[in-house]
Amino acid sequence: MVNQKATNVTRHEGDVSSADRRALLGQSGSTLWFTGLSGSGKSTIAVALESALMSQNKLSYRLDGDNVRLGINKNLGFSGADRAENIRRVGEIAKLFNEAGVITLASFISPYREDRNQVRRIHHEMGLAFVEIFVDCDLASAEKRDPKGLYKKARAGEIKNFTGIDDPYEAPDHPELHLVSDKMSLSDEVKIIIKYLEDHNLLS
Amino acid sequence: MVNQKATNVTRHEGDVSSADRRALLGQSGSTLWFTGLSGSGKSTIAVALESALMSQNKLSYRLDGDNVRLGINKNLGFSGADRAENIRRVGEIAKLFNEAGVITLASFISPYREDRNQVRRIHHEMGLAFVEIFVDCDLASAEKRDPKGLYKKARAGEIKNFTGIDDPYEAPDHPELHLVSDKMSLSDEVKIIIKYLEDHNLLS
Repeated sequence: MVNQKATNVTRHEGDVSSADRRALLGQSGSTLWFTGLSGSGKSTIAVALESALMSQNKLSYRLDGDNVRLGINKNLGFSGADRAENIRRVGEIAKLFNEAGVITLASFISPYREDRNQVRRIHHEMGLAFVEIFVDCDLASAEKRDPKGLYKKARAGEIKNFTGIDDPYEAPDHPELHLVSDKMSLSDEVKIIIKYLEDHNLLS
Repeated sequence: MVNQKATNVTRHEGDVSSADRRALLGQSGSTLWFTGLSGSGKSTIAVALESALMSQNKLSYRLDGDNVRLGINKNLGFSGADRAENIRRVGEIAKLFNEAGVITLASFISPYREDRNQVRRIHHEMGLAFVEIFVDCDLASAEKRDPKGLYKKARAGEIKNFTGIDDPYEAPDHPELHLVSDKMSLSDEVKIIIKYLEDHNLLS
């Protein structure tokens, strides 16, 4: 938990409502939170989903561990405290995008259950849709893929605190969606997510 | 300047382009950065602009010192370093919204020129539109308005480092727009901003 440091702050309500945004965009804001091991396919799925949504004239935006770490979170490393702050900030940014009406795709290893649950809580406090998507992949398969060569470096001791090697991954207990990425096809994964959005009236 | 702490990060390019977003939304992303004293009217103008844009079916989103400080920046206070980090983070968030195609309204006192220029730089590096709007108001007028009672507290010594009282405000040298808020009407201010957006092809 982070304590509120600044005082003398109050929340503003603008005149533009979430109903206005929904009518304009033909969708509700939502946060799709992809969690899983490095190399499990989180970003691959998010990229494919973003294209599929655009082809349906739906506005989405992708927040990505790598991109965010080159910008807002460039002053954070990979210690436990920095990882928690990384996820906290991304959760807050996703909440803002969601509130703006955007389908927000956040793909982050986010290995700790409590960090993810905190992101869920801040969404629910604001009545915003939060969809945890567990991108489930065998460590062996992820390590075999190793798209960025990171497992190799971690095994060689060049990267410390690497999730799955010398840092734990805590799988979600009750994710809204569970994709077994070393068994399912990419197009099926995208279809499952879009069906979820349709079934929950998030695309209308 | 903040140093890049995390290594092993690369930038992803998705398949959805800014042209796709522009075609979908009928607008370009942009960042409108409102700077000025507390009580100068920054948020009032941003709220009115947001409504005016929605009535033209344009998607905007408002980032606000107060709202952001209750969320992503709740772990920051009002020291010089914390103010700089506050503005840095907001600038990075605005950049993300802008990239997503949203007309992003950021209203922050942002008293230091260098902090604002850094936000401008990160936008220009990405080829994103950045519009600095100086909401210029006499200290005497702002203090007379004192909508949140903050000047009174600052004068009583209950708030330290208050911009205009015991902390400086560095006016922009070359803002894209200069609104003299104790002389101009709110509707004129909104019209001027919308004209700027139209003239720069940001609403089509």
